[in-house]
Amino acid sequence: MSTPTVVGLDIGGTKTVAALVGADGSVRDRRRAPTPARGGPRAVLDTAARLAAELLPAAGDGPVGVGTAGTVDPATGTIRYATDSLPGWAGTPVADALADRLGRPVRVANDVHAAALGESWAGAGRRDADLLLVAVGTGLGGALVRDGHVDTGARGAAGAVAHLPAPGAERLRCGCGRYGHLEAVASGSGLAAAYAAETGAHVDGRAVAQRARGGDPAAETVLARAGAALGRALAGLVALLDPAVVLLAGGAAEALLPAAAAAYAAELPPAWADVPLRAAALGGDAVAVGAARLALDPYDGGAAASPRRERPT
Amino acid sequence: MSTPTVVGLDIGGTKTVAALVGADGSVRDRRRAPTPARGGPRAVLDTAARLAAELLPAAGDGPVGVGTAGTVDPATGTIRYATDSLPGWAGTPVADALADRLGRPVRVANDVHAAALGESWAGAGRRDADLLLVAVGTGLGGALVRDGHVDTGARGAAGAVAHLPAPGAERLRCGCGRYGHLEAVASGSGLAAAYAAETGAHVDGRAVAQRARGGDPAAETVLARAGAALGRALAGLVALLDPAVVLLAGGAAEALLPAAAAAYAAELPPAWADVPLRAAALGGDAVAVGAARLALDPYDGGAAASPRRERPT
Repeated sequence: MSTPTVVGLDIGGTKTVAALVGADGSVRDRRRAPTPARGGPRAVLDTAARLAAELLPAAGDGPVGVGTAGTVDPATGTIRYATDSLPGWAGTPVADALADRLGRPVRVANDVHAAALGESWAGAGRRDADLLLVAVGTGLGGALVRDGHVDTGARGAAGAVAHLPAPGAERLRCGCGRYGHLEAVASGSGLAAAYAAETGAHVDGRAVAQRARGGDPAAETVLARAGAALGRALAGLVALLDPAVVLLAGGAAEALLPAAAAAYAAELPPAWADVPLRAAALGGDAVAVGAARLALDPYDGGAAASPRRERPT
Repeated sequence: MSTPTVVGLDIGGTKTVAALVGADGSVRDRRRAPTPARGGPRAVLDTAARLAAELLPAAGDGPVGVGTAGTVDPATGTIRYATDSLPGWAGTPVADALADRLGRPVRVANDVHAAALGESWAGAGRRDADLLLVAVGTGLGGALVRDGHVDTGARGAAGAVAHLPAPGAERLRCGCGRYGHLEAVASGSGLAAAYAAETGAHVDGRAVAQRARGGDPAAETVLARAGAALGRALAGLVALLDPAVVLLAGGAAEALLPAAAAAYAAELPPAWADVPLRAAALGGDAVAVGAARLALDPYDGGAAASPRRERPT
């Protein structure tokens, strides 16, 4: 009996990835393309379908999994809410539209939810049934895995750690437009804004991290502050969510981890002192691997659709 | 066919309540006694068993449910961690010990978990499958119900909202000994400490609320600050946990609700603007009613034990 392989798709604001994934969670092959975000939902779906189709001949007969930016309606696989990174994406019936294009059942989850599922299955959380993953990129996202399944919440939006009040962020604007939220300090855009406030220099979060590595004191201060705020919040979230492990993922994770780990260790209530904070392990593959896991297990928290050729999108 | 009734027990630091509860969640009869906390676990268990035994002749043949102070091991029904309100309670095998005393299967949950289950079944959350309950008493507790079942977490401790960082609480000491946590500002003991800092007068949280109702400006300020911190935190938690409703319970809930509701409404991210914040409805019955629900449904998140007469405690 051959090992079944499945295709997982990662639809992000800047790139789309299709991965051929083994039953052990290993990536056997990949296809990548820029996401034609400005071309609208139909162009985004066409690109995703094309990449998946290139890998499907090597995969088994089962469903395709998708992790996508935006809030996914758990009942239908339609996007309920999305940011400007994918214009027009809200309202797009991703599950139905890709099922029609691919001629296979499609299961869809939010991309951070998918990343957490991937790490839980084949990454830094693979020995832990309960994990909290926090992803620090341009923004700040999160997901909780319980008994190996993503906690999607009442409307598919669970895991949004961004809007927790954060001491020290009172004058900083969150992506949601309000002030004082964790994302306003602990995110790529938060690092950029804080560095601009300190120095007047307008560079992105990645550049702030590079400058800190180069010994720029202002950049070091900004990173230390953001990491400490993140670590304290994570300690509070451990008591709230009671996971077995916390994983830090995303582009800014490496730069924030030292300060975050120190604050986390100092603030963790004694009853949870053994809950580790670790770096996520799957990097840029996490979403596609988690999407592949969705394709293997219908109970992992994704919304599903089967091909219905009467309803092309 | 007669409607089955069950017995739910509420074992708290000051009082123990047994309730005879109908299949509709209504309380048909009650027994109450002071909890002999200083007498140690055996005395506490004896009192609980005595109260339950008085009601059991009127109940059906099924299990007895228990909501108790302390963290309950989801696998065994043993207390993993408890505060000084019940000396020696940590390590007590509540499920086994009560099953032995009552000659019936016993299902045990944390008391705040039980209260959330009770509100979800027969209280202010009975139309909502997903709810967050936050209980503001002397301390601050919480519980999440998903699809009608309590989310117990990896070690039975999920729902501890107490240790989230709270802006404005930087100089206030939490029950855990650390500073800056939400419980340090939004709890009965937090109200008392803040009022003492403002006025030098040492009164409890209940008295602070009474003084605020009487027009004491310092008490009003303390309540407004605590309520605002709580409301902001709840708004952040809605985005994180994605419940359908938030319920505020506990002795200090009524006093904090106006300021909390205002801050909550102002801070709720737009995607969750329709998630209501409401007062819990079951008052002092919530834990016993939730415990009764546990007795009816083994999948509600409690840990179970059957009578084993070889192991009295």
